[in-house]
Amino acid sequence: MLEIRAAQSEDAGTILKLIQGLAEYEHAPREAVATEEDLLRDGFGKEPKFHCVIAEWDGEAVGFALYFFNYSTWKGRPGVFLEDLFVWPEYRGKGIGKALLLELAKIAVANKCGRYEWQVLDWNTPAIEFYEGLGAKRMKEWLPMRVEGDALMELAKKS
Amino acid sequence: MLEIRAAQSEDAGTILKLIQGLAEYEHAPREAVATEEDLLRDGFGKEPKFHCVIAEWDGEAVGFALYFFNYSTWKGRPGVFLEDLFVWPEYRGKGIGKALLLELAKIAVANKCGRYEWQVLDWNTPAIEFYEGLGAKRMKEWLPMRVEGDALMELAKKS
Repeated sequence: MLEIRAAQSEDAGTILKLIQGLAEYEHAPREAVATEEDLLRDGFGKEPKFHCVIAEWDGEAVGFALYFFNYSTWKGRPGVFLEDLFVWPEYRGKGIGKALLLELAKIAVANKCGRYEWQVLDWNTPAIEFYEGLGAKRMKEWLPMRVEGDALMELAKKS
Repeated sequence: MLEIRAAQSEDAGTILKLIQGLAEYEHAPREAVATEEDLLRDGFGKEPKFHCVIAEWDGEAVGFALYFFNYSTWKGRPGVFLEDLFVWPEYRGKGIGKALLLELAKIAVANKCGRYEWQVLDWNTPAIEFYEGLGAKRMKEWLPMRVEGDALMELAKKS
């Protein structure tokens, strides 16, 4: 039996394991350096920097979707951005990932959001087709750019 | 003389004009339906959904950078996402856009952010090269996906 529920601070350890599971799945386990303290501080304080829903199968936490609100200046409305979606391999094929994805659409509508967004690896054709089947559009023209680490420190010093 | 400062609620009308200016520049003036009320409610209330810095040239507001905080689950840190950057055409070539971009790098570091991100149109080679020169990396593999409007309402109903 599947149940989707909002994460509580008690789930921080579970969420961390799922984040690490996703990093391993993406062949980058060393890049996931977040700690349980980080998640408690940033997700469950007074002004949470992210939100999270947990998927339980027969009472066991087996997947999660982690999101935050972004903003559309054209619509004048917030949006939902899905940062991480992950289900442990042994629980795949039960519609859990899809249920998590749909739950955030419901949250987006409940919060009067103008859009719901995420990113997918461009070689992951099955995922892209699955998302398109649910009504998502590829933002083909848009290229994500990122500054991090030392490059970010250097850039900040230039101003 | 250039000055960069945080936007105040009194700037909502100015910000709206800049948002509309950017939409026109991107050949999509009709898509910018946000109102001044939207910006006041979402940007200057108790839990602002976005933040904004204004560039003044000789005391006149001539450009802006609008951003919000996203979250890196791998770093366990928030990040800065630059949503809109725009300078009125007659004030270009004075380094105002670059100054706005650098200001947000400073804000990212001051807020202990792990990364600073934005998106660029993939055919805008001069912009991409400019950003790369500042230390930004293209996240080439990542494809942005979006659900909005009726498709979002439909998706929410499926859950």
